[in-house]
Amino acid sequence: MRILLTNDDGIFAEGLCALYDALCNQHEIFVVAPEAERSAVGHAITIADPLRVKKVKRGNIFFGYAVSGTPADCVKIALKEIIHSPIDLVLSGINRGANVGINVLYSGTVSAATEGAILGYPSIAVSLDEYKEPDYCFAAYFVSCLLDFLKGNKIKSNFCLNINIPFLPAHKIKGIKFVPQSTKPLIERFEKRIDPHGNLYYWQCSEEFTEKDPNTDVVALKEGYITITPLFHNLTRFELLNKISSWNIPF
Amino acid sequence: MRILLTNDDGIFAEGLCALYDALCNQHEIFVVAPEAERSAVGHAITIADPLRVKKVKRGNIFFGYAVSGTPADCVKIALKEIIHSPIDLVLSGINRGANVGINVLYSGTVSAATEGAILGYPSIAVSLDEYKEPDYCFAAYFVSCLLDFLKGNKIKSNFCLNINIPFLPAHKIKGIKFVPQSTKPLIERFEKRIDPHGNLYYWQCSEEFTEKDPNTDVVALKEGYITITPLFHNLTRFELLNKISSWNIPF
Repeated sequence: MRILLTNDDGIFAEGLCALYDALCNQHEIFVVAPEAERSAVGHAITIADPLRVKKVKRGNIFFGYAVSGTPADCVKIALKEIIHSPIDLVLSGINRGANVGINVLYSGTVSAATEGAILGYPSIAVSLDEYKEPDYCFAAYFVSCLLDFLKGNKIKSNFCLNINIPFLPAHKIKGIKFVPQSTKPLIERFEKRIDPHGNLYYWQCSEEFTEKDPNTDVVALKEGYITITPLFHNLTRFELLNKISSWNIPF
Repeated sequence: MRILLTNDDGIFAEGLCALYDALCNQHEIFVVAPEAERSAVGHAITIADPLRVKKVKRGNIFFGYAVSGTPADCVKIALKEIIHSPIDLVLSGINRGANVGINVLYSGTVSAATEGAILGYPSIAVSLDEYKEPDYCFAAYFVSCLLDFLKGNKIKSNFCLNINIPFLPAHKIKGIKFVPQSTKPLIERFEKRIDPHGNLYYWQCSEEFTEKDPNTDVVALKEGYITITPLFHNLTRFELLNKISSWNIPF
């Protein structure tokens, strides 16, 4: 397969390199990723500033293109300006930290896959549920198995998959669950601090999910399953659309 | 009503002030908005940097709180740290420029409303389909009519509405259409330029929508209708979820 590989942790992030190393023998990989970390940028795009693109090496060998923008920018500029022949897949990750529930909306990793889907390409976002120096080996291996499966079964439909992998030894992973995104809020708080000049500032902290339904990405991941959630870039709430269509708003 | 008013064009943007002026006699308004323009930030949140909050005046009178973050940050910090009593509505806008179709995903204006909905509040995003020094009078008047309608009909359900208003004289507006978000791609291009130091850079440019279906926000707005699209923060593609649940991926 010809694969555009990107992420939101930056072009030299371990998760991206692990995926590259696991896939580069069997697939043709084009790396186009942010020059630095762009986490929690959501589906941001850069329109008020110009974008710059820089060729980068890993060791002494050409590795890919570093872009001065967001993950969504990377996908757009890769497909329109950098890669001049068709690709089979947009692959984003492996992200350091899960992207489940409400965090799907905040995630730069997921937005890169969504952008791929908007532009008409099959796409996959992959995240590993661990922040502290995780080992990406198993997660990268799972992605290579998934690509073999997709290829072997000739699945070419226009999917956008959000995949989250528990940080567990392989034999402790319970299996794969196909689940919807949880929509329940996170428990969040702001931590107040005073800077050395006497001024107040705030750190935003996410504590935990309120979701309890085992048939959601949030709970299935926590229970030790690899979660796969197909996404589509449509935020319309159709059942409410039908209800409010009878509103007669005078103006 | 007690209303949290925010936007993505910054706390002193004309569209926000127009809404404030149109509503402040009848409603209690709390302004918490980005200190500067944060357009196309999508549903970004600020986690790698601290947030600062500054009281600001308009003329000589206290106006609201300027936050060093994104629209979604503003809604979170307003509801958790700044406003210490219940509110009835999160209102975001009036944005300079429409937020329809795929742009709904890129929009900071919409993400503020979505964040309100995630946190359990009714919310509305309002955008005006004009970039060049628009007059926000009619759009602000329409929002005041809508709030009167919601209040008069005691509509309290947990809605998140994305409203777009054509930039036309009031008598030329054809009415209101309740329509889904278009999911069709934009025609986009990158304009290449060379800086004074001889280096290549790119400007990202959106040209036009490819959508043709009149029953979408994109086309209805272009045809002269006010569009109302109810949103929900769930990107799951349910019909594909059912299909792929039978995938047996060996790993």
